[in-house]
Amino acid sequence: MGEVNRQILLDRLPAGDKLGPEHFRLTESAVPSAGEGEVLLRTRYISLDAANRAWMQGATYRSALEGGQVMAGGALAEVVQSNVGHLKPGDTIFADTGWQDYAVLPGKQLEKLPPMEPMTHLMSIYGIAGLTAYFGLLECGQPKAGETVVVSAAAGSVGSIVGQIAKIKGCRVVGIAGGEEKGRWLTEELGFDAAVDYKSPEFKRLLRAEVPDGVDVYFDNTGGAVFEAVLFAMKNFGRIACCGALSQYDGAPPPHGPRGIPGLIVTKRLTLRGFVVMDFDDQREAALKDLQGWVASGQLKVQEDIVDGLENTPAALIGLLAGENRGKRMVKVR
Amino acid sequence: MGEVNRQILLDRLPAGDKLGPEHFRLTESAVPSAGEGEVLLRTRYISLDAANRAWMQGATYRSALEGGQVMAGGALAEVVQSNVGHLKPGDTIFADTGWQDYAVLPGKQLEKLPPMEPMTHLMSIYGIAGLTAYFGLLECGQPKAGETVVVSAAAGSVGSIVGQIAKIKGCRVVGIAGGEEKGRWLTEELGFDAAVDYKSPEFKRLLRAEVPDGVDVYFDNTGGAVFEAVLFAMKNFGRIACCGALSQYDGAPPPHGPRGIPGLIVTKRLTLRGFVVMDFDDQREAALKDLQGWVASGQLKVQEDIVDGLENTPAALIGLLAGENRGKRMVKVR
Repeated sequence: MGEVNRQILLDRLPAGDKLGPEHFRLTESAVPSAGEGEVLLRTRYISLDAANRAWMQGATYRSALEGGQVMAGGALAEVVQSNVGHLKPGDTIFADTGWQDYAVLPGKQLEKLPPMEPMTHLMSIYGIAGLTAYFGLLECGQPKAGETVVVSAAAGSVGSIVGQIAKIKGCRVVGIAGGEEKGRWLTEELGFDAAVDYKSPEFKRLLRAEVPDGVDVYFDNTGGAVFEAVLFAMKNFGRIACCGALSQYDGAPPPHGPRGIPGLIVTKRLTLRGFVVMDFDDQREAALKDLQGWVASGQLKVQEDIVDGLENTPAALIGLLAGENRGKRMVKVR
Repeated sequence: MGEVNRQILLDRLPAGDKLGPEHFRLTESAVPSAGEGEVLLRTRYISLDAANRAWMQGATYRSALEGGQVMAGGALAEVVQSNVGHLKPGDTIFADTGWQDYAVLPGKQLEKLPPMEPMTHLMSIYGIAGLTAYFGLLECGQPKAGETVVVSAAAGSVGSIVGQIAKIKGCRVVGIAGGEEKGRWLTEELGFDAAVDYKSPEFKRLLRAEVPDGVDVYFDNTGGAVFEAVLFAMKNFGRIACCGALSQYDGAPPPHGPRGIPGLIVTKRLTLRGFVVMDFDDQREAALKDLQGWVASGQLKVQEDIVDGLENTPAALIGLLAGENRGKRMVKVR
């Protein structure tokens, strides 16, 4: 095809240290061709998620990453060449293309996405972030109007949607995020009732002050000290949706877990439920319809944080792990 | 009434140390009389439970105990004098009489129990122990035939029933208990498929060997290191019924919780649910009917461990916390 395929390799796995630019390497190869049953894809927008980092720590819901391979990651991509009947050039799909300009994948499990303007919404509100927020909050959290909902990593791709859906459902919503500026953004722009800065030395006291009667539903994106603080503030019969453990991905795994487990689970009769968005695939259509309605009515604001250029993908992920994004971060490849 | 009322006082609260005889004191007072709306009760069998110790650590589902008061505890008791219409002398009730020969309580919330031979079954299989096992396993654990169920404190009042019910439901059952002798009792007498000794230095390896495909349902009575070991052995979509934290009641509270929280909850999509038996009061009749049927058919063996004499109640509790009982421990007062 004349062009080259730029690829970002995960050159070596971080060994208990923080992820840095030195773990990645940009390389170039020839643009591949699609074989039998395969499709050639041109990457348009690469999704950046804390999960990218978690995959480097070992097997999760997918096998662990290894050093030397193209860095794994989901992306919106355009079909360039297709050897399967259900896809044709120009179609948009979402797949684990990895961090590269072009990828060849088996076509069988790929699914054509509907036209969308802007197409990035397919990866934010109508993609994994939106559906994760929707199912985690509504299925695992089971919030009722008037209840208090707390969400951590509240300014992130998932958290910012969780809080807005909880508001739509009539809950009092407290977001936990790093720094006062993010807090103001959550309350002033997204309609959260309050925000608490987990970086404050007064974090626990500030949290308790915002949830004087306790927490009914906690959507946990972080684990660690934030998880523990909210656990101690839970009400009887509270629900905790366990979505991720952002605080624990970038560095050595913590030697211990939060205090109060399982004692507080018993005395407060809590339910903790872990989930992965794929578990709810059979309910996706109904969820998308709800999300579309809320976006159309202006009740749900779509927050996207778009970084330009494939070469900037490592820095974009490193920055995401440091909490610099607001809403769904992605890299525009072309 | 001429008689004295022997009372065991919780003389002082253990302050981070293990519970010992020095924390209790036997005293005597006059037998009280029932006032308006009250009943005078004669204690027959005092229930001994890890919960007695948990109450000394702070507020749980009941307020914390204080030093100097009669030690709290549930008991089967006989009505001696009644100033309420629904109870008459000779009736049997279960109430928090405390550790004493006689107690005066408001009659309103007391409920006459059906005749039962032996009456101790009202406190073991048809009492809190049996109902806790039933609801915790079936409601929180949701075991299906063919699944693997693990229960800790398996030789205790609740655990020994949990394992037997899981067998009735067609599960493979592995009990965790201290010492080989208890293990033999579980497999040879109660029909458990296997038992693992948590005191063995090889505990984790032994556990993994008995659950090669992982654990579907874990009924946790202990918390701590045993909880952590089973957590790491859970299968995807496994359920953990959190019933208590026996390992953490007698001594200082642990400085940390188990590792893998919340990371493993997410990646394995686990559900952890804490419960207290009172939460299921509305389903009690149906549960008792099931339990009675299983006892009548011989599928469920009732295990009682009866210590004689009120004066031996402190030692009986201390021994229970050290794991010396098999099945439901109680003290026969008279």
